[in-house]
Amino acid sequence: MFPKNTWYVACTPDEIDGKPLGRTICGERIAFFRASEGKVAAVEDFCPHRGAALSLGRVYDGNLMCGYHGLVMGPDGKTVSMPMQRVGGFPQIKAYPVAERYGYIWVWPGDATKADASLIPHLEWAVSPEWAFGGGLYHINSGYRLMIDNLMDLTHEAYVHVGSIGQNEIDNSPVITKVDGDHVYTSRVMQDIIAPPFWAAALRANGMDDKARVDRWQISRFSPPSHVLIDVGVAYAGKGGFDAPKEDKVSAVVVDFITPETENSHWYFWGMARHFKPEDKELTKSIREGQGGIFGQDLAVLEAQQRNVQDYPGRSLLMLNIDAGGVQSRRVIDRMIKAEQTPAAEPA
Amino acid sequence: MFPKNTWYVACTPDEIDGKPLGRTICGERIAFFRASEGKVAAVEDFCPHRGAALSLGRVYDGNLMCGYHGLVMGPDGKTVSMPMQRVGGFPQIKAYPVAERYGYIWVWPGDATKADASLIPHLEWAVSPEWAFGGGLYHINSGYRLMIDNLMDLTHEAYVHVGSIGQNEIDNSPVITKVDGDHVYTSRVMQDIIAPPFWAAALRANGMDDKARVDRWQISRFSPPSHVLIDVGVAYAGKGGFDAPKEDKVSAVVVDFITPETENSHWYFWGMARHFKPEDKELTKSIREGQGGIFGQDLAVLEAQQRNVQDYPGRSLLMLNIDAGGVQSRRVIDRMIKAEQTPAAEPA
Amino acid sequence: MFPKNTWYVACTPDEIDGKPLGRTICGERIAFFRASEGKVAAVEDFCPHRGAALSLGRVYDGNLMCGYHGLVMGPDGKTVSMPMQRVGGFPQIKAYPVAERYGYIWVWPGDATKADASLIPHLEWAVSPEWAFGGGLYHINSGYRLMIDNLMDLTHEAYVHVGSIGQNEIDNSPVITKVDGDHVYTSRVMQDIIAPPFWAAALRANGMDDKARVDRWQISRFSPPSHVLIDVGVAYAGKGGFDAPKEDKVSAVVVDFITPETENSHWYFWGMARHFKPEDKELTKSIREGQGGIFGQDLAVLEAQQRNVQDYPGRSLLMLNIDAGGVQSRRVIDRMIKAEQTPAAEPA
Repeated sequence: MFPKNTWYVACTPDEIDGKPLGRTICGERIAFFRASEGKVAAVEDFCPHRGAALSLGRVYDGNLMCGYHGLVMGPDGKTVSMPMQRVGGFPQIKAYPVAERYGYIWVWPGDATKADASLIPHLEWAVSPEWAFGGGLYHINSGYRLMIDNLMDLTHEAYVHVGSIGQNEIDNSPVITKVDGDHVYTSRVMQDIIAPPFWAAALRANGMDDKARVDRWQISRFSPPSHVLIDVGVAYAGKGGFDAPKEDKVSAVVVDFITPETENSHWYFWGMARHFKPEDKELTKSIREGQGGIFGQDLAVLEAQQRNVQDYPGRSLLMLNIDAGGVQSRRVIDRMIKAEQTPAAEPA
Repeated sequence: MFPKNTWYVACTPDEIDGKPLGRTICGERIAFFRASEGKVAAVEDFCPHRGAALSLGRVYDGNLMCGYHGLVMGPDGKTVSMPMQRVGGFPQIKAYPVAERYGYIWVWPGDATKADASLIPHLEWAVSPEWAFGGGLYHINSGYRLMIDNLMDLTHEAYVHVGSIGQNEIDNSPVITKVDGDHVYTSRVMQDIIAPPFWAAALRANGMDDKARVDRWQISRFSPPSHVLIDVGVAYAGKGGFDAPKEDKVSAVVVDFITPETENSHWYFWGMARHFKPEDKELTKSIREGQGGIFGQDLAVLEAQQRNVQDYPGRSLLMLNIDAGGVQSRRVIDRMIKAEQTPAAEPA
Repeated sequence: MFPKNTWYVACTPDEIDGKPLGRTICGERIAFFRASEGKVAAVEDFCPHRGAALSLGRVYDGNLMCGYHGLVMGPDGKTVSMPMQRVGGFPQIKAYPVAERYGYIWVWPGDATKADASLIPHLEWAVSPEWAFGGGLYHINSGYRLMIDNLMDLTHEAYVHVGSIGQNEIDNSPVITKVDGDHVYTSRVMQDIIAPPFWAAALRANGMDDKARVDRWQISRFSPPSHVLIDVGVAYAGKGGFDAPKEDKVSAVVVDFITPETENSHWYFWGMARHFKPEDKELTKSIREGQGGIFGQDLAVLEAQQRNVQDYPGRSLLMLNIDAGGVQSRRVIDRMIKAEQTPAAEPA
């Protein structure tokens, strides 16, 4: 189950560069392509003629031409033309609201009449020259909720990610979870510590003292339906941590857009937006490579966890304080799903 | 569902060269081998002793020796011998009528008492020195009917096969479908056109003018249970097309023997028999390679289409005039299946 | 179905060298690791916190630390600690009786209170300097009973293993099967024959005449739950065969520990313990390589047989005299399974 009347990240612009893309999102098989004037479009990946996959065709004059018999599908799901055929009576296929914003293509897989582009979250780092971003995409064979759990509790860094961002102090710092409407925050602060390897390198890259004692923060922010943005960074000890002046800190946002594919698989758009040295392309590249490796470790853990919870469905799991972020986030999701299933309760 | 009281192409002779072949046809797991005097034989691929696959054994003195415990199976499905055993009471396994003809091994997967070798279609190009043939085999994960649809409507050439046999004129030429008993014909003629790359090369190979304007024809001929032979060619414009004198045309038959494996997969024996330059082995080879690539493109399209129609079973598809050939061919198949399921209506 | 209150070979010591091992045995997902003082331990491969696979973690101070959130699991299935958590109320997970003996790790997947290490069979060749051993492990997609059938009837050597240990005389020598309580013996003696290639090489390696006529024996010994040890060898003809004086024979034990993974797959620990030239490491290596190849041939045969018996469940198989060993062995297994399912009949 997934909320469908909401925006998900569907793909990145390079994935529809010059050719359509077929991708399943929330159980919907969708063909994405660039329509006229480069505007992104998304329709069911099902040709109304004989059921061919439209995404195997090609973009032609702002429409999607089926690669089988040349049916030309418009971005609105209406057949534009087909050789030697009158297409007026052809059944319309579903068109999905889409938007290109902040370096992503966003899709609304549910009721198109409810789609509102203003609900796409604002991503400051994607529009400000003070930030640099690098990221990637993984396909993971686990339910999307397990990835939310993973990100709303960063305790696992100490174990899965030893040698990069993990450090023992993570264990010794309490986690605080707050819920604010549909938003969930899990934060941890480690005070007066030595920066772990990743952050020591960041301090050096920023021309700061990598051996100084620092305050470190991790603030995971869940927002519906399944986005997790994590404020991370270190500041010289005693300077205010997250709120320290810019010259005393290095900070970044770990970006996690989690898009369900099916009940038991998801697309994981990961990345890091950093608020230092934005012009340093080499740094972007090396952070991206490091992060790609780190997140690849999570992948094996989540897929094995998925097999376990799937094969032992009756078995109850523990809900500890460190799990509160995930638990609260799932409650938000459950509310959204329930609201979508109760049409009577919706405004007219 | 497939008609079973009929001849299908099972394999080519080289596939049973010196060793048995295990292949599933119409849901039947069959072991093919060369019995005494090189005569082809086919029995269930199931050793009556312990269920081993007979096709993993070896041919021994005209029989098939099980590779597990040495049971010797005769071409009639009766156990011939087994070391240290009396085999008189061993249960008989099914033997399938088979025939080797026209460069193929043919099998009758249904009621053996109804098998009649004279029902195997005559293939002139396989027995006349005026013709040359080259072909191959693909395993395709789609129902066999989707391949018949594909071949009984060559509109798709314009889209799937751009750059070889596709050309825009295909769209602009009407398709005529005729039904004659259990045979279905779909034909298209393109008059006074420039030959597409494949046919221009054929004209050159035949010592003809490859820049001359030509009439081009495509005549798909469906015959039960699932064979599609397509007359194709070009003649100098105004010389009579398909009926033009030999010196004014180049012509060929696209050969498509479509053999169901399971409900959702099939064996596709493809090839081209050409009626020009039969002695040119290099030409045979290059046509075969080109055609192998072209038909490989169909493969991806059909497998994606299969996933779509399988996952959306309730969804109705369009039946346009260009689909008439496939629709009529399916009707023939449906009649055959129904007749097989109505034993009372059969002659005593 | 498999007996569970019994010892199976789970793995070899090198497989838990420095890291845990996750392996499914009799349908139980188990994490094996070395606890304090190198003692082997086995617990459910399911972290009681969130269901992560414990086998993806690491050994830490004699316990198994979950790689996800650092929960520390003891060898008894009780959580030892977890960062920032009180673990007293955490649910216990299943711990499995294990033992390290004769070069294997043994596990008791059933009722732990019934486990008794004295029931592990004695393996003389593993503790005596007069023997040398080499072996390996295959994962096979067939039910474990098909492998028992395979090993309790060595007729198949003549067919599957032509060119190494197969020879025609195998067919001509009668098989005698004996049952003694829960043990089943199938033996065959071939008298006054020429040694097949494997044994001719063994005679040479042992400084004996490889062209002399010999008596050859094969004695398959089944013991519960699914172990098959096979006495094999040749002696100079007329010297007493299996009972001949040491200087007149070369002998070995083919070792087969067959451990169910699921209903339709198993782990096959194979090897050969030889009673000649134990100090010759090169010989151990070459025998191991040869045997690995021979047993790899069985693999393909068994997996095809499994598909056949699985897809034609209603079809009865023959039970010949050569199958008596397998049939009797299955009866022992069936009795064990029935006894486990009848708790009332068990002693208090």
